[in-house]
Amino acid sequence: MGTQRKGGKSGELRPIGVIRSALKSRGKAPKQGAEGAPDAWLEVRSFAADGLDGLLAGDDVIILTWLHRARRDVLKVHARSDRRRPLTGIFATRSPDRPNPVGLHRVTVRKVVKNRLRIGPIEAIDGTPVIDIKPMLSRVQDF
Amino acid sequence: MGTQRKGGKSGELRPIGVIRSALKSRGKAPKQGAEGAPDAWLEVRSFAADGLDGLLAGDDVIILTWLHRARRDVLKVHARSDRRRPLTGIFATRSPDRPNPVGLHRVTVRKVVKNRLRIGPIEAIDGTPVIDIKPMLSRVQDF
Repeated sequence: MGTQRKGGKSGELRPIGVIRSALKSRGKAPKQGAEGAPDAWLEVRSFAADGLDGLLAGDDVIILTWLHRARRDVLKVHARSDRRRPLTGIFATRSPDRPNPVGLHRVTVRKVVKNRLRIGPIEAIDGTPVIDIKPMLSRVQDF
Repeated sequence: MGTQRKGGKSGELRPIGVIRSALKSRGKAPKQGAEGAPDAWLEVRSFAADGLDGLLAGDDVIILTWLHRARRDVLKVHARSDRRRPLTGIFATRSPDRPNPVGLHRVTVRKVVKNRLRIGPIEAIDGTPVIDIKPMLSRVQDF
């Protein structure tokens, strides 16, 4: 364990793909995928395409995005942008504004076309960088 | 939307805390929290402590970590390190080795002591950087 593995300590994210969606601005996006969000394309970059091997239409996966429009200097918000709600620490909310604005999106893979996945429903806006794809551990519970 | 919000486009992660655990090496850690992992402390850095406001003992949350011992140059693995399983794209597995080694850990908050959370069960090893804490959207399903 004493040796440094390649790239291990670096906290620099390298996007593995990008969301292509009809949603063009944050103001028009639903707050969660289950709240009427559309399907979208996930275009995986060529360097990472081999990592898709084994993913199939019908799979439930978690997409991790980098919410590039988020503010990183906010620690308290009104949940769901509702000012009637009390100011709450961002770690007790799902606000996109947070020190490391990683988005979690549970979606279904609709189809796989080479390095492109049709996925949904997903509230991420067009151009959102994707940093990871993970299978669900079970259909019902974990994540 | 034309202006750049502070820090928004940068993909540089800034850890908000660190795991303090009796698990000291990756080889001894369970592969998932539900597989016999212990409780641990999450020490939140002072700059982010205000973000904890509203988190309570008993809450189910998702901890996002940066798996600093992972390899980032791997695209196919044998799932669960079992060589009898076929080589599979890492996006169809939960292997820690992946281009952006973000770990997802569903845990229960046992107690909150100022800027420290007692959480578990969690398989992350001692010293693992924490990048986010998110509440579960529901007790049963989403993430």
